[in-house]
Amino acid sequence: MLRVVALFRAKPDKIEELREVLTAFVAPTVKEKGCVFYQLHQNLKDPQDFSFLEEWETEEDLDAHGQSAHIQEGRKKIPDLVEVPADVRRYKLLL
Amino acid sequence: MLRVVALFRAKPDKIEELREVLTAFVAPTVKEKGCVFYQLHQNLKDPQDFSFLEEWETEEDLDAHGQSAHIQEGRKKIPDLVEVPADVRRYKLLL
Repeated sequence: MLRVVALFRAKPDKIEELREVLTAFVAPTVKEKGCVFYQLHQNLKDPQDFSFLEEWETEEDLDAHGQSAHIQEGRKKIPDLVEVPADVRRYKLLL
Repeated sequence: MLRVVALFRAKPDKIEELREVLTAFVAPTVKEKGCVFYQLHQNLKDPQDFSFLEEWETEEDLDAHGQSAHIQEGRKKIPDLVEVPADVRRYKLLL
């Protein structure tokens, strides 16, 4: 089991567009092999700040997710919508 | 309900010390009013990188957590152990 925190910072005029792109990832991803949860969040005070919190059964499942058609398509759209590159971190749960 | 992502980056020679301080937060915090979950993680490839993923019933509960004795004590120790100030973000779950 591993956890992922994926942080995305929208350009100020692209908040809605980025939210739509990230939202569209959820339905296909939760059907993927090894996806335990995959949840999209928006910062309460800073609407440019989005995060996914994710749990995957194995790193192989997570790597396959990165190669999935919907993520590959989304990755083409995201660079124009964000201020900085996505910050994606893989974690083990300590306790 | 709200979610929190709290990111801590240990100095290279303070990883174990920071892990001990953060670990000690868990047992008292999960007993606090309004704490749904409070989980500590360490980056799989970058051991300096720790994160808490948290869920709280209300912002008032989270504010009270920040004033709790164990967090106030921990906050005195953390500045010497981290490379950058803690990055604590409050989120709403979109889906």
